[in-house]
Amino acid sequence: MKLTRFYKDNKVTPGVFADDNTIIDCSSFGEDWNETFFENDGLARLDTYLSEKRVELPSLPASDVTLAPAIARPSKIVCIGLNYALHAKESGMEPPTEPVVFFKSTSAWTGPNDPIVIPRHSEKTDWEVELAVVIGKKAKYVSKENALDYVAGYALHNDYSERAWQLEMGGQWVKGKSADTYAPFGPFLATSDEIADPNNLNLWLSVNGEKLQDSTTADFIFNVQHVIAYLSEFMTLLPGDVISTGTPAGVGLGLDPPRYLQEGDIVELGIDGLGTQRQVATKEA
Amino acid sequence: MKLTRFYKDNKVTPGVFADDNTIIDCSSFGEDWNETFFENDGLARLDTYLSEKRVELPSLPASDVTLAPAIARPSKIVCIGLNYALHAKESGMEPPTEPVVFFKSTSAWTGPNDPIVIPRHSEKTDWEVELAVVIGKKAKYVSKENALDYVAGYALHNDYSERAWQLEMGGQWVKGKSADTYAPFGPFLATSDEIADPNNLNLWLSVNGEKLQDSTTADFIFNVQHVIAYLSEFMTLLPGDVISTGTPAGVGLGLDPPRYLQEGDIVELGIDGLGTQRQVATKEA
Repeated sequence: MKLTRFYKDNKVTPGVFADDNTIIDCSSFGEDWNETFFENDGLARLDTYLSEKRVELPSLPASDVTLAPAIARPSKIVCIGLNYALHAKESGMEPPTEPVVFFKSTSAWTGPNDPIVIPRHSEKTDWEVELAVVIGKKAKYVSKENALDYVAGYALHNDYSERAWQLEMGGQWVKGKSADTYAPFGPFLATSDEIADPNNLNLWLSVNGEKLQDSTTADFIFNVQHVIAYLSEFMTLLPGDVISTGTPAGVGLGLDPPRYLQEGDIVELGIDGLGTQRQVATKEA
Repeated sequence: MKLTRFYKDNKVTPGVFADDNTIIDCSSFGEDWNETFFENDGLARLDTYLSEKRVELPSLPASDVTLAPAIARPSKIVCIGLNYALHAKESGMEPPTEPVVFFKSTSAWTGPNDPIVIPRHSEKTDWEVELAVVIGKKAKYVSKENALDYVAGYALHNDYSERAWQLEMGGQWVKGKSADTYAPFGPFLATSDEIADPNNLNLWLSVNGEKLQDSTTADFIFNVQHVIAYLSEFMTLLPGDVISTGTPAGVGLGLDPPRYLQEGDIVELGIDGLGTQRQVATKEA
């Protein structure tokens, strides 16, 4: 299944992408795609519901709607830093010997095609295409061997970053990761049965049509299983939580000279099997 | 008002502390103390409700109940690091020139007197008494002058920290701040009218009766107004969000030799006007 959410009468509405690029309106299922849904075996219940009711449910062309974030705002967005060797190098940092972990504010959560709003005092808003993992059930002290059992599915995420705020203002990275609209998520959450191997997916990002990131998750320093197991030693991962697995080389910080988003720039990105996003850069008043 | 939550029939139940150390059961108000409550002027509505209904509501002695976290799990716990000069010194770091910011996993959220569970592979679980600020309404680009208008109230928070995970494992602090039970919160949220000056409160912490932290928020490097205004430049603070304002000197890391929690240790802490907490250290199986 490909879970999504869209705006209908200004209200966020749960849906599922059909193969013909229509969206099945799942309002009548009566639940949002949130922590409670994942925690209470929602994916299996939804699958059963759709197999029984699908023909009765309204559907609409995906091109006719504005997409919301594919799942509800999670309890946390955990990000892995420097998880591709070439990106570590372009950032002027050593490849890490164990995962670098940081949080992104969940108030950054936004739809996959919403404008990226360059914040008021930002001069260094940068892009980061990433594979996001959504947790399906409470995960604590999970082994690498069992780690994928805890995954609800995968999605595309752009981990926008303000480089001056992240790196030039003392201490921790969170300041540069948390502005509003800095976490476009979707167009859909593909359940894990749809992705044969999360550690072997091409991902790319272009700005104004120029491809700047072009890599594969096969180049992960720490793969999805490693990351889930590692994180679960330090904190409990809850159903619906998002892990963003790091970005490959080609961010603005790594260009010579560095290049950051300007008003009107168009950012497009995608991952094999997980769809695409498109954001137009706007400046905050 | 002093908002609290407690367990009744194993269910978290909202309440308000009365002056005689009883708790008024506010189940009939029909809301939890969460983002929706704060966002929809809940404090004012609750105040009106209590002035009309209080005599009809059941109450029970505080000593008879187990307290839950005083408000619902927030969308984020934002922490300020090194916000007292002596604590920066004992940590071997320079006093910061602007606030150091990090996030704590909200899955660490726990009641004020719940056991502190030393995680499985932890050897350096440390204490940090802190003044926590709870946001009352959406805050973005707030000025220092207006910052206190965005505060719902104040509470006591113990920002437990695993020092090896925080400082010896590469990169960011979040790994050492996020274990389950690492964020005891309460016994109550005192609404802002109850605290004349948040920047002039004594706070203390003892381990097994020995007072190890003993300071005042008058020693903040960055006061409450400064911190709120500063954070609101980088992210939107949502109703019910928690800002933990940093800890004074006297943590285990700063002792010579350093000292960390052992099974059976008793941690007690308090802040003027915000009550006390008591945690017994247990080891995770």
